[in-house]
Amino acid sequence: MTVAENAPTIILVEPQMGENIGASARAMLNFGLTDLRLVKPRDGWPNERAVAMAASADAVLANAQVFDSVAAATADLHHIYAATARPRDMIKHVVTPRKAATELRKFSAGNEKSGILFGKESSGLSGDDITLSDAIITVPLNPDFSSINLAQAVLLLGYEWFQVADETPDEYITNEERPATKEELTHLFNRLETELTTNGYFDKMLPRKPVILKNMRNMFQRFGLMESDIRAFQGIVKGLTYVKRDKSNK
Amino acid sequence: MTVAENAPTIILVEPQMGENIGASARAMLNFGLTDLRLVKPRDGWPNERAVAMAASADAVLANAQVFDSVAAATADLHHIYAATARPRDMIKHVVTPRKAATELRKFSAGNEKSGILFGKESSGLSGDDITLSDAIITVPLNPDFSSINLAQAVLLLGYEWFQVADETPDEYITNEERPATKEELTHLFNRLETELTTNGYFDKMLPRKPVILKNMRNMFQRFGLMESDIRAFQGIVKGLTYVKRDKSNK
Repeated sequence: MTVAENAPTIILVEPQMGENIGASARAMLNFGLTDLRLVKPRDGWPNERAVAMAASADAVLANAQVFDSVAAATADLHHIYAATARPRDMIKHVVTPRKAATELRKFSAGNEKSGILFGKESSGLSGDDITLSDAIITVPLNPDFSSINLAQAVLLLGYEWFQVADETPDEYITNEERPATKEELTHLFNRLETELTTNGYFDKMLPRKPVILKNMRNMFQRFGLMESDIRAFQGIVKGLTYVKRDKSNK
Repeated sequence: MTVAENAPTIILVEPQMGENIGASARAMLNFGLTDLRLVKPRDGWPNERAVAMAASADAVLANAQVFDSVAAATADLHHIYAATARPRDMIKHVVTPRKAATELRKFSAGNEKSGILFGKESSGLSGDDITLSDAIITVPLNPDFSSINLAQAVLLLGYEWFQVADETPDEYITNEERPATKEELTHLFNRLETELTTNGYFDKMLPRKPVILKNMRNMFQRFGLMESDIRAFQGIVKGLTYVKRDKSNK
């Protein structure tokens, strides 16, 4: 895939565990984000554990830049979001990840650079970091269990960023099959009716035959049969009647 | 929070790493899912590494049920989805996580039980597991890096399930502040104009004064000032003019 122009920068502020930096890099690349910046990573840089966890997203780590302050890490950006679950005692705009993603796409389209700050594992972002930000992104979470791992927060933001521009239809059928035509469906159904009638299935309930057929037809209509499903059902009808005739011939 | 009635069951099929089972439990509880089922976990059950990773989501693990087959693990369910990136050579309905979430919510509201299958880390779900499912859920991912961790896949499905019913507004201002009234804004602006005029700011550009004032007013209109912002700006005007008078008094 082509990485979007001015896709958001992910800024990890004082990340503690290399594993989380590596997992964040993977989560970023899963959704086409490649600009990673680190502010004072606890265990220095580069970090072997980060590389091990990143696996084949290691190029994201190789290109990561390290800074001494959030101000330095964000100096060239036009828009900063703070990912935090805790709006502090300050007046701040708060958006959901989904809303943030639409805003980030607008910035990207307008050739403006944006970044998202993520705080350290133990205590999140400081009040000062949040003050540097234009808005807060808060993931709606189970209020009884709202502790979310650093890389998982990166993943959710990346996911929403990607979904805005992704053109996958929200549902489809695999395998390039086409639906059955109504003629194919009618052929199948007529055959089923004929075989059932021939076999005497309706003999003891002739008055109810029309209702039973109507219900069966409605059932088949509801299935959304594909072309090959029609062939499968034709085979089933053929197979079942074969067996009966074989038995009757004995 | 109250766990939703008939929230989807998460079924991990032959999970290999305890850490991923524990991280999946956390991801589930983050989004109010609590019914975890395991089919033939590689390292047996219970699993210490799962407990360590689950941290305070350990209750989800304590209630997890273990089964010998996918058929047994799903026997009481009405609807099964298979989370897999790879639609195989079969005709199958494929939905995005977002679409699946709306369907799962409908099942839940209709008192129908649903579950989502997740395959083993190394090779995902088998063709047989997928055949047992009603539909496939595929997360749209960067086609050049579409390998996603088991617990992260659980996280994304849980996230979408939760968002369908979450009532968080997509944007809001923290701290229960109210916007400034237009009267408050006008008072501030009139004071600013008076002080600037008194201080002689416009003396050398009197012809442009109306345009400058109009632009300033538009700028302040654009800020979306809150009540306390007005007080802050009143303080700024006051503070700046204090300094000037102090200097001029010397």
